[in-house]
This record gives sequence, C-alpha cells and structure tokens, in this order.
Amino acid sequence: MKLNCDMGESFGAWQMGNDHAVMPWIDQANIACGFHASDPDVMAQTVSWAISHHVEIGAHPGYEDKVGFGRRSIPHSLTSITRLVAYQVGALDALCQIQNIHVAYIKPHGALYNDMMANAAIFEAIVEAVAGLNQARHVKLKLMVLARADNSEYLNIAKRYDVELLQEAFADRAYDDVGTLVPRTESGAVYHDATMIKQQVIELAEGRVTTVSGKTLLLHADTVCVHGDNDESIVTIAALHKVLNP
Amino acid sequence: MKLNCDMGESFGAWQMGNDHAVMPWIDQANIACGFHASDPDVMAQTVSWAISHHVEIGAHPGYEDKVGFGRRSIPHSLTSITRLVAYQVGALDALCQIQNIHVAYIKPHGALYNDMMANAAIFEAIVEAVAGLNQARHVKLKLMVLARADNSEYLNIAKRYDVELLQEAFADRAYDDVGTLVPRTESGAVYHDATMIKQQVIELAEGRVTTVSGKTLLLHADTVCVHGDNDESIVTIAALHKVLNP
Amino acid sequence: MKLNCDMGESFGAWQMGNDHAVMPWIDQANIACGFHASDPDVMAQTVSWAISHHVEIGAHPGYEDKVGFGRRSIPHSLTSITRLVAYQVGALDALCQIQNIHVAYIKPHGALYNDMMANAAIFEAIVEAVAGLNQARHVKLKLMVLARADNSEYLNIAKRYDVELLQEAFADRAYDDVGTLVPRTESGAVYHDATMIKQQVIELAEGRVTTVSGKTLLLHADTVCVHGDNDESIVTIAALHKVLNP
Amino acid sequence: MKLNCDMGESFGAWQMGNDHAVMPWIDQANIACGFHASDPDVMAQTVSWAISHHVEIGAHPGYEDKVGFGRRSIPHSLTSITRLVAYQVGALDALCQIQNIHVAYIKPHGALYNDMMANAAIFEAIVEAVAGLNQARHVKLKLMVLARADNSEYLNIAKRYDVELLQEAFADRAYDDVGTLVPRTESGAVYHDATMIKQQVIELAEGRVTTVSGKTLLLHADTVCVHGDNDESIVTIAALHKVLNP
Repeated sequence: MKLNCDMGESFGAWQMGNDHAVMPWIDQANIACGFHASDPDVMAQTVSWAISHHVEIGAHPGYEDKVGFGRRSIPHSLTSITRLVAYQVGALDALCQIQNIHVAYIKPHGALYNDMMANAAIFEAIVEAVAGLNQARHVKLKLMVLARADNSEYLNIAKRYDVELLQEAFADRAYDDVGTLVPRTESGAVYHDATMIKQQVIELAEGRVTTVSGKTLLLHADTVCVHGDNDESIVTIAALHKVLNP
Repeated sequence: MKLNCDMGESFGAWQMGNDHAVMPWIDQANIACGFHASDPDVMAQTVSWAISHHVEIGAHPGYEDKVGFGRRSIPHSLTSITRLVAYQVGALDALCQIQNIHVAYIKPHGALYNDMMANAAIFEAIVEAVAGLNQARHVKLKLMVLARADNSEYLNIAKRYDVELLQEAFADRAYDDVGTLVPRTESGAVYHDATMIKQQVIELAEGRVTTVSGKTLLLHADTVCVHGDNDESIVTIAALHKVLNP
Repeated sequence: MKLNCDMGESFGAWQMGNDHAVMPWIDQANIACGFHASDPDVMAQTVSWAISHHVEIGAHPGYEDKVGFGRRSIPHSLTSITRLVAYQVGALDALCQIQNIHVAYIKPHGALYNDMMANAAIFEAIVEAVAGLNQARHVKLKLMVLARADNSEYLNIAKRYDVELLQEAFADRAYDDVGTLVPRTESGAVYHDATMIKQQVIELAEGRVTTVSGKTLLLHADTVCVHGDNDESIVTIAALHKVLNP
Repeated sequence: MKLNCDMGESFGAWQMGNDHAVMPWIDQANIACGFHASDPDVMAQTVSWAISHHVEIGAHPGYEDKVGFGRRSIPHSLTSITRLVAYQVGALDALCQIQNIHVAYIKPHGALYNDMMANAAIFEAIVEAVAGLNQARHVKLKLMVLARADNSEYLNIAKRYDVELLQEAFADRAYDDVGTLVPRTESGAVYHDATMIKQQVIELAEGRVTTVSGKTLLLHADTVCVHGDNDESIVTIAALHKVLNP
C-alpha cells in the first residue's frame, strides 16, 4: 500500500503545505493543476521535487475556483467535466515532459472528488477523459477514487473504458460501519492522534479498518492519503513510511 | 504557402471571431489556450471544427491576462516563460488527444509573440519549451515566428535545440524596407482593401513582398496570417484560399 | 412603470450587447460589476452613457464566475453573500462618484438573483448589504426583486431593514397561474414576437398579466426587464419606451 | 509619525502575514482590495480587526495580478489607472460602510506604487481618482506616497487637485544620499537588525535619516512602513510602537 499526499497547492506568493519536507516520505504526489491552486512555476517545482525522491506524479484537477480552493461544487455539463479534467492533466503532463517524466495517475480534488464519488455520471465523465488521454499513451493513466466497501459499480464503469482504478483510503478519517467516511462535521471524524493514525494505516495495509462502532470492516486500499500541513504531521508521515517500508 | 488564423478566442458566454465560417478556408488554426482567451469548452469545440476541415492545430499560448487579451507585456523570468508555454500547449494537446489528434505547432500570442521577436532570450525560453515537449513526441512540434528578411539568429538558436521554425508573414500588414512590419500606429500599416491583401499574398507565395516605399524585398514565408473578424474578411480569406489552392 | 436592462456585460476585448443603442430607450441600467462580467473600463463607459441619457444606474452584482457568466450557483455562506454584494456595489459606486453620480439600486444577477428568490436567507443577506451601505447614504439604495403575485414575505424582511424593494416583471417571459415565470426549459417560456411582448408590457403597466393558461393575474411591477441583444430587440425596446412614455 | 503596515493579503484558503497580531501595534492598515490579493471575506475580517484596535483604514489597490502579487508592472492607459484605483477603493469602502467606518487614505501597492513614484502622469491619474472620490465625501481621502528629499513636483500636482499627501518612509530600508531607497537587489538594502530599524525610526520621527554613506539627510515622513511577516518582526513593530508612543 502506498502513501499519497496533495501537493503543489501554493499559488504565486502564497505558500501552502511543506511539499519539500513531505516528499521524501510519500510514494505519490497529487499535484494541483492551476484551477483551484498552483501555477506553472509551482507545478514545475513540485514535479522536480517528486523526481528527486522517485515519487509518482498524479494530476490533481479541480473546479476552476481559486478563492474557494476547489471546495465548492460548481455545476458543469458532463462534457465540460471531461474537458476540464483533460485540460488540467495535459497542462501538468507538459510540465512533466519538459523534465522527462510523465503523469502516472489522476486524483480529482475537493468538490470534484466528492461529486465524482456521489454521482456515477460525473465519475464516468472523468473516466472518459482518462480513456481519451490513454489513447495516445504507452503507459496508461490510472484514476484514484475513494476506497469503499463495495466499489463494484465504479469498477465496472472503469472496466468498460479499460481504465485502472487506484482505491484510496484515509489515514486520519473515521469510517462508519458501511465503509464510508464519517462526515467532517461530526465529532471524532478526524483523527489527530498519531498512534490512531498509525494503527489505521497498519490495518488498511492488511485490507481492513476498524469502524467507529468498533467493528472490523474489509476495505481494499491501494494507497492511503496523508496530510502534511505542519511539522507534527510530517513526523507522522515519516513514521507511516517506515511502517509500510520496514 | 499556408494560411493560418487565430481561433478559439471566445471565452464563456463571450463570442469572438467566426471560427466556424473561417475554418473551411484555412490550413492552420492557432487555438488560444485559456490564459488570454478561450476555455476548455471553446478549445474542444474549435479542435473539433479543425478536425472536420483537416486543418492543422497550433497552440496559441499567451500571457495570463484575459482583461488585456494577452496584448500587454507582463514581466516573467525566462524559466516562467518556458513553463507557461508548456502548460498551455499541454492543455490544448490533451483536448486534442481526447479527439484523437495532436497539436502540430506553437504560435505565441500578442505581447508574448512581440516579446519573443524583440528578445532572443525570450525566444530561446520558448524554444526550450518546444524542445522539452518534443522529447516525448514522435511528430515534433514546430514553432511559428515572424518571417523577417534576416532571421538567421533565430534559425540558429532553433537549430541548436533541433526545433523547426515556421515563418509567418502577414496578409494585411505593410512591410518597410528592412522587412519589418510597419507599426499599427502609423497610417497605412494595415491593409483593408481585399485586392491589396490578395496581391500581397500572391507575392509572398513567390517569396517576396512590396514594401511601403515600393521596393521589392525577398521574404520567405511558410504561412501567412489572416483575420476572420467579419463577413467581408471571410470572403477575402476564401479568395486567398483559391489563390493558393488553384 | 420603468424599463430596465442588463448592461456593461462586455469584458476586456469581448463585446456583449449593444449598450450604446439601448441606453436612449430605457430608464434603469443594471451594470455588471466585474465578478461575472465587466471591468473598470467597461463599467465607467457604461456609467457615462447612462448619465448622457439620464438613465438610473443600478449595480448588477453576481457570483465571481466569468467563465460561467454568473449563471451557476456557487455555494457561499450568508456572510460572504453580504460581502460580495457590498464589494461590487461599492466598486461601481466609486466609478459613479468620479463621474459625479451615485448608484440608485441593486439588482443581483443570474444565479445570485435566482438563489435570492428561492431562498429567503440569501435574500436577507443581500438586504443586509443594502441596509449596511444605506447607513452612509443620503439617497438610499433600493433592491430590485422578481415581482410575484405574493411577495409579502420578502416585503416584510425588507421592511425590517428599512430597504425599499423594486419589483420587476419580464417583458418576454411567460407567467404561469401562480405568477411565477415558466422555466426557460419549457416551450413557450420566452416570447420572441414583438407584438406579444408589447401586449404584456401594456398589461403589466396596468398591474396584471395574462398567464399561459389564459387567466388574468394581478401582478404589481415597478419596472420591466428588457433585453437588447440584437437590432430587432432594440427596435422592440424603443417601441416599449413609446408605449410607456406616450 | 505613524506606523503603517500592508494587511489583508490573504486570499481564500491562503494565509499571508499575521494581521491579527500586528494590528495592536500600528496606526494605519493598508488593506489589499482583491486585485493583487485579498477577497471580500478577508477584507471584511481585516476591517473588523482594524476597528477593534482603532487603526485607520487605507485602501491598498494594485494591478490585477494575483499570481504576480501585484509586483509586475502591467501597462495601462492613464484613464484605466484612475478607474482601477477607484474601483478598488470603492469596494473596500463598501466593506467599511457596512461596519460603520470609512476608508481614510489610499496607498497603491507594489508595481503600481513604484510606477506612481517613477511616472508623474501615473501619479496624477491616481490623484484624479482620489479627487473624484472626494467630491462625494465629507472626510477626504488622502494619498500615501514615498517620502523623498524633494517631493515638490508631486506635492504641487496633489495641491492642484486639493488632495492631501501622506509621505511614508521605510523602517527597514537603506537610503542613499539623494534620499531614494537603495534597490533591494543591492546588498545592505534591507535592514534585518531590530536595533538598526529602531534607530532609523527614531531618526525619521525627528525628520532625518542616516544614508548608506553615513550622511544625515533631512526627510519628512508622516508615517513609516513596517512589515509583520514573522514573530520576530512583530516584536520589532511592538517596540517601534513604544518608541513612537512613549
């Protein structure tokens, strides 16, 4: 199981996150593509750090909404969804190409990610972008989605387009008994304790998770999402790295 | 000699140009990439019209300045120039790829084009973007520049990077005796008479141009830029098409 | 009853509408404020045309969404709604002040207008902006809303804040039997026939409207919204002007 | 002599500066207006902090360039300069009005400030905006400019428009013998030592400054600009506050 982290979320003079410190400890960098965050310089810099640490590069496209940081759902036609994803992936891939590397996967950001998981038609519009781009690629782009106890509907759609999914779990989020994330608005939804986070990652690596009610649930995760917002969280990520790469 | 035209310059609800009517008569469509004009939907639509009429697709990147339409020079480091060009080309290329085609060349827009022609370091920064992108391509991207009586400096730089240049002349712009365009601020700088425009294109196709002083100047042009702003200009473009494709 | 028209919807090099031709025939110009359309130059130019024709100036604030032209509902907290309206009204008012005039009223645009009419809390957030701005004004800003058969809820809220409402009807939109606009998605929702539009304005001026089922409904309108998109529609507006100013 | 500080430079999810910690120690807050930084929520929040600490509110308008943070000179007509300043001041003033306060002065930001000081025509275009806005105000807006050994040209222009200037010096910048700031590109241009900064403020309060060559130069400053980027600088600002308010 791999560790992925949202990166390249600075914008112009505004810094966000500590990508340089997080990069050594993760396997996959989800790099913002200029619509909800980032700009060509931030993207290129983040790509070069990823290359230094042999980290896979993922495109992290979002709705065009910097002031809302891509966290607000903005109505789009399905066709527009396909295009806005393709646009952003292509932009990041070009910044990879001039550094002799390629985007490996796509993970939608924020409201686009949530809309994708809530609406199979939006998911399919994104799959169409991935499949369309894959026509011209030797190494195919994969698509990262939320790991769920039953993801068969999405796996079936992806299969029709010959797109491989990467299922991601969350290291610091509580799961309920049906395998969905407890909403952030509820207390206990986010784990802040490093020991609990570590414990959850160990379980996820074994294909299961302990839910809020104490039940054990089977959950397949290819990758787990971590956050590197502060010094403490970077220590935690480094510890998770050691757990997964003993 | 080919005909090229700036296209895809609409933005959201704002229409500009009449791309649908111009497309049948040109050979190369320079499609805006979302920084000074266009958006993913406009770009995808313009690409599909180009495909219908077997028109080559060029990326038309500009400075990030919608309100100024990319006509204002905005200071950038050379590294940033390389990246902003790569970003935009990649974005358009992705919208091409999902329609099973590729960007064929790059023509910088407006102030970026002028800065490129005025400053060899900016030109080289753009050539670097092209060369960087070409590393991953079977069919290499070319770079469109202003045809000048002596373009040897730029041809030499491009050769060092193994980038092919396309030299473009202007159908409706007066040339002075050293082969530069008469500035728009001077009277007589822009030809509005269809007969004069046609005459200039016939001469350019033969490798020469008559300057404002009446001299004949040798000028090699691979392509000539036309404008499709109104019904009359589209009639002119159709006439030029017949002249060049008898 | 007055005629109002959305104006100042150009942006940079992109033209929209024909404000100069419409201005002589209307009483109230709803001027976009730079979030969904317009820019300081377009706003100042539109203000100067309004002054020339003694047209009242209204601020036409929208969601910050140029590519969607303010037609997409973007989630905001109520506090943010108050602030984004105040920001835009203040910006336009400053461009009025340097021409020695003031904004007279506010009409929200597009999705913000629809959200305001669908959600009393959003309406109240906008009323708060108006009331807040009115604290510093001799001549109070009014707020334009959709005329409805029963607008008592909104009138009551506005009264609590001492804000005067202007109720607007639509010249070219069909009304159903409860006095709401027939959705644009239904056939017959928009009148294109100048005679029907004229007839509806005559009725509205008398405080009533004929619904799609043929019933007569009482509807009080202070102003009626017209559109000046093309030459034909401008002829219609001029005719409506004569009907209302015999 | 007062202390002023650039504030409200956060944008959406991106934080910049520590306005809350700096506010108690300064007299004048230059609040960004949404073109180079800030948004309506950030502006309103910063205004409310300024009110809490009885700090004068200044509008800090810049070129429309978030990715460049307003630090890049973007060509504008003089008329556009007047309008973009008025737009931003009006926007901030509206957010002040709904909190029952008014903008007191204007300090252009970054490249706009530099262009204003380098080009008297741009300065006059800004003065025109101030004078235009003052027509409608009881308490007149002032304009903050760089204190120079001889500012007579600018003082004369401002006088013609009946606009009062506030001359600002810099606490942490070295001055040369003619009273201009040593360019940041030169070593020693910026003081990082708190003692030197304090010493310079003490001298400025007495109407003089020690130049890089050791000469004493007469320099009248109404206000001195401080920066609150980190914890250390906030300590320095608090110390300067005590020096000026013993």
